[in-house]
Amino acid sequence: MLRQEVTQLSVSTKGRAFYEITREVTAFVSKTGIRQGLATLHIQHTSASLVIQENADPEVRRDFERFFKRLVPDGDSLFEHAAEGDDDMPAHIRTALTAVNLSIPVVHGELSLGTWQGIYVWEHRVHPHTRRVVVHVLGE
Amino acid sequence: MLRQEVTQLSVSTKGRAFYEITREVTAFVSKTGIRQGLATLHIQHTSASLVIQENADPEVRRDFERFFKRLVPDGDSLFEHAAEGDDDMPAHIRTALTAVNLSIPVVHGELSLGTWQGIYVWEHRVHPHTRRVVVHVLGE
Amino acid sequence: MLRQEVTQLSVSTKGRAFYEITREVTAFVSKTGIRQGLATLHIQHTSASLVIQENADPEVRRDFERFFKRLVPDGDSLFEHAAEGDDDMPAHIRTALTAVNLSIPVVHGELSLGTWQGIYVWEHRVHPHTRRVVVHVLGE
Repeated sequence: MLRQEVTQLSVSTKGRAFYEITREVTAFVSKTGIRQGLATLHIQHTSASLVIQENADPEVRRDFERFFKRLVPDGDSLFEHAAEGDDDMPAHIRTALTAVNLSIPVVHGELSLGTWQGIYVWEHRVHPHTRRVVVHVLGE
Repeated sequence: MLRQEVTQLSVSTKGRAFYEITREVTAFVSKTGIRQGLATLHIQHTSASLVIQENADPEVRRDFERFFKRLVPDGDSLFEHAAEGDDDMPAHIRTALTAVNLSIPVVHGELSLGTWQGIYVWEHRVHPHTRRVVVHVLGE
Repeated sequence: MLRQEVTQLSVSTKGRAFYEITREVTAFVSKTGIRQGLATLHIQHTSASLVIQENADPEVRRDFERFFKRLVPDGDSLFEHAAEGDDDMPAHIRTALTAVNLSIPVVHGELSLGTWQGIYVWEHRVHPHTRRVVVHVLGE
């Protein structure tokens, strides 16, 4: 019989960087006892993303930061919306260019992530924030 | 007992801009009577997106338009596919850079959106279009 | 009564290009016998994407390649992570800029794709790879 469980994760960030949450999501899936199903994550913010990326090499995340800093420069004179800081509008754009939700099948009681895939909250603001991620697991 | 409901929204756009559909999606979720579950939205087009973004400040959406216009210029000589207009290939690329579907958990009978999150159809073509969004709600 | 089925597709790529999988996904949905529900796709890699794009005109896909090659240049001196090849870090970034999962409602026994929408694995690496896509279908 199909059933569902929901939880909310709270992630304290220390400013612009990747924060891995694979372990927390995996632990919740495991706790539900659901062996086959679907896990959905939704981040309740417009200036931080959810991304699945390589969990092996920290260089990769540093290169992501460098690339996005060049692609969407802080304090770009193009932006009208600057009252909340030079990094605010870039944070919104970085969020739209990546994702705010993820859907991952659960197979044999585990998230069907690839070998190198980790789940991250990507904080796009320069200052620390508390980010909420709703996790919904459906299955049996 | 888990159950599901599906509907289709039709959104008339007046050209390139954001069109908020939070109210329509919320109304459908409410009508299903589902208190906990998962809402999935899918836009049936390749030149308009679904995005979750800040609903408080119209400046943010104007800055989005300016940024994407610079990032993916209309009429760029790079593009071979131009028969359907200068804005056609940029519209496809803008769609791929953002999203065509969204998955949002339903908690206590409501979409678990953050305080500042609104759901938008982002029309990327210059001329008006009718955009169809399929909404699927699953839960109990 | 709601039920679910899961399968895994294996896609052999010949390097950087789009590989359509609409037919394979449609065939699996059809085989499940599910008439209404939700199909979720997840690609288990960090250097290849899942995208829904125009299936009518091959020019569109060629323009996508040209645009992304300019946006995220191979061998960019910005990148520290280059040990796995000039195209490796760009492949990660192209993946983050697009999507690794898709959620598409099933209506009347079919994926609710728009007229021009096709589902593609977008290989971002220059050399051939075998890409795994998990497909989960839920419904009745």
